[in-house]
Amino acid sequence: MGKKIKIGFIGLGGRGYGLLKDVLLEMHDEDVDITAVCDLYEDRIAAAAELVEKKTGVKPLRTADYHEVIACKNVDAVIIASAWESHIEIAIASMKAGKRVATEVGGAYSIEDCWRLVYTYEETGVPCMLLENCCYGKIELTVMNMVRKGMLGDIVHCEGGYMHDLRDEVSGGKENRHYRLRNYVNRCCENYPTHELGPIAKLLDINNGNRLVSLTSTASCAKGLHTYILDRKGEGDPFAQTKFAQGDIVTTVLKCANGETITLVLDTTLPRTYSRHFTIRGTKGSYFEDTNSFFFDKDHHPKYEFDGKPLWDNFDEYAKDNLHPLWQNYDPKGGHGGMDWIVFHAFIDSVRNDVRPPIDTYDTATYMCISALSEQSIAKGSMPMDIPDFTRGKWYMRNDIADGPYNLDKIEEYKY
Amino acid sequence: MGKKIKIGFIGLGGRGYGLLKDVLLEMHDEDVDITAVCDLYEDRIAAAAELVEKKTGVKPLRTADYHEVIACKNVDAVIIASAWESHIEIAIASMKAGKRVATEVGGAYSIEDCWRLVYTYEETGVPCMLLENCCYGKIELTVMNMVRKGMLGDIVHCEGGYMHDLRDEVSGGKENRHYRLRNYVNRCCENYPTHELGPIAKLLDINNGNRLVSLTSTASCAKGLHTYILDRKGEGDPFAQTKFAQGDIVTTVLKCANGETITLVLDTTLPRTYSRHFTIRGTKGSYFEDTNSFFFDKDHHPKYEFDGKPLWDNFDEYAKDNLHPLWQNYDPKGGHGGMDWIVFHAFIDSVRNDVRPPIDTYDTATYMCISALSEQSIAKGSMPMDIPDFTRGKWYMRNDIADGPYNLDKIEEYKY
Repeated sequence: MGKKIKIGFIGLGGRGYGLLKDVLLEMHDEDVDITAVCDLYEDRIAAAAELVEKKTGVKPLRTADYHEVIACKNVDAVIIASAWESHIEIAIASMKAGKRVATEVGGAYSIEDCWRLVYTYEETGVPCMLLENCCYGKIELTVMNMVRKGMLGDIVHCEGGYMHDLRDEVSGGKENRHYRLRNYVNRCCENYPTHELGPIAKLLDINNGNRLVSLTSTASCAKGLHTYILDRKGEGDPFAQTKFAQGDIVTTVLKCANGETITLVLDTTLPRTYSRHFTIRGTKGSYFEDTNSFFFDKDHHPKYEFDGKPLWDNFDEYAKDNLHPLWQNYDPKGGHGGMDWIVFHAFIDSVRNDVRPPIDTYDTATYMCISALSEQSIAKGSMPMDIPDFTRGKWYMRNDIADGPYNLDKIEEYKY
Repeated sequence: MGKKIKIGFIGLGGRGYGLLKDVLLEMHDEDVDITAVCDLYEDRIAAAAELVEKKTGVKPLRTADYHEVIACKNVDAVIIASAWESHIEIAIASMKAGKRVATEVGGAYSIEDCWRLVYTYEETGVPCMLLENCCYGKIELTVMNMVRKGMLGDIVHCEGGYMHDLRDEVSGGKENRHYRLRNYVNRCCENYPTHELGPIAKLLDINNGNRLVSLTSTASCAKGLHTYILDRKGEGDPFAQTKFAQGDIVTTVLKCANGETITLVLDTTLPRTYSRHFTIRGTKGSYFEDTNSFFFDKDHHPKYEFDGKPLWDNFDEYAKDNLHPLWQNYDPKGGHGGMDWIVFHAFIDSVRNDVRPPIDTYDTATYMCISALSEQSIAKGSMPMDIPDFTRGKWYMRNDIADGPYNLDKIEEYKY
């Protein structure tokens, strides 16, 4: 490890504060100093600054204006964990100021914003990395490893979902100043596509030999939040009569240049258990997160069959010999089962080594644009929408891929 | 039970012969006589006629021309189990000849055909019933029963699939003279939508208070059959270089007049276990066939949770007290877990009582048209397609629903 990277942290709500506490400050000894903290709310700034000082002895700049963070000489790179609506605006301002950016996940509100992100990168040479932790999930990476080994044959179809019962979080958004509430009131779209799309896009070589071409998006009616609020909080709740624009289930189907299809499902306002519905279908085998099971063609062992169906929950059996190198001997640290820790290391390493981040500006624009396109497709009765080629042809001839252990595009070079 | 119904049976391939043997002849004592058998192949006619005579003593008319069956005075009703392409043609001819029709499942090839089916019914008064056995499946009916009781709240989204590894059947189609082969070579669409759509449509009151409005359909590339043929049969196989038009996975998303969405998946040429992926999502609970489990909101019992997920395979626990009346005390007979037996009884009863069949002509046209619309949507880059209102407004004011234990539209009147 070389010199410490000085980080300005913008956005200190639930996710931002959690990341700061569980990941970034734990990386202090070797990797990072937090030299600026920023939020629109003074109480959040104070809590974060006090935490940083107590844990590391560093007194960070405190500000409610992100421009002060990106102007600060004592900041090398910026992490954005603010409200969804501000991600791209802050990212572009940071890149123009010469500060590398990592932005928390969320979708774009317009295609134009995604193009501006790409052009800013091309003009400044400063990249923006989407902090898509799920690209580094244990299951996602292990399945990718097996795909790279050819164990699943040619991949022809993938599915993923953000399936997370957020009814309490959304309907309590006013108390906790959460941006989800205003999104669910005003918008109807695949508002959170990147957790599921990110790992699938890496697995399918999107922007690196393949690209997303088009999508359709269809939303169900919106009944889940209203029912929940009436049931749990009663007619006196301030949102008891609120009309939510966001459909309960949004189904988005994407087509890739190489012929694969991807189905994404947003499923956040009905009772259910958590799942990212990670589903990879190949000509010789498949993985299904919902049953946590592989199914293979020829090599399928009878012991995994039960009543004509594969025995559920056989992931560990196969993972044993096929764990992705990043997960071998990794004792998960930090939130979300250890993914957060890895994705932050990937970002910090790309800053330190001044290389293209493993989820780069083109990837970030590509993943984020799905929300804006989904919104338009739904508004136009599920009309197919063009997914821009943000690389403008470079996807089939890219040679600027950074090396390094976190670079998912280089996974085939790992030693098994 | 009253007089026996005299049945002409058209189409004696694998499915037709199986139905004849396992269901219709077993119903002989009380319900039916088989008075005509018809197929394009002489060997099939002979085998069926001999079976009928041996089991029942009746000598059926033998013919390769279905017109002779529908012209036969000794035939009350016709069952069609021929190749998909001929279902509507034979059905219309039969209805014009005054013979009630039950047709095996399959999709339509043009919307015009579906309209002709409907107009023929309206002109002749003779109905056509789709023999959609899955409308009578134990799981499907039990979940419907629970939905009618309100246990799942308002239903906002459903999913279903025809997920059946047919690689052997399709690629061996030449030897067994199966129509699937020529369909997979020439067409790309949701070619078999009714097993999954039928029960969902009944549950969502389609054509009886609700209707299907539009769909998009998207197909993956076609690699499964080619890989399978090379792997299992080698380069010398006559189909080793065949280019199959049918994509391996076809995803179709439908929108209903009342705001619900339905996702259908055709998944027949990749290695997998069988599933109809029956998935019902409500504001208070859900059923997921792939884990064979319910998930409820308020009443969710901790014992069904495991590591944050519901314990798989809890269907029986809930089915105990919520089994659909048709399945209470029913000891399954015939093929497909007993569904075939029930759907045939439903048809025979509707003939005997001269009432509208429980899956009527409008339903048949509505379910079958999905294939033709899917084909066009895929050809047009997933363009949304209008689903015709075959009832022309009667869906929200129908009052011609037949009574009887098999009538799924009347399920709310059953005694629980």
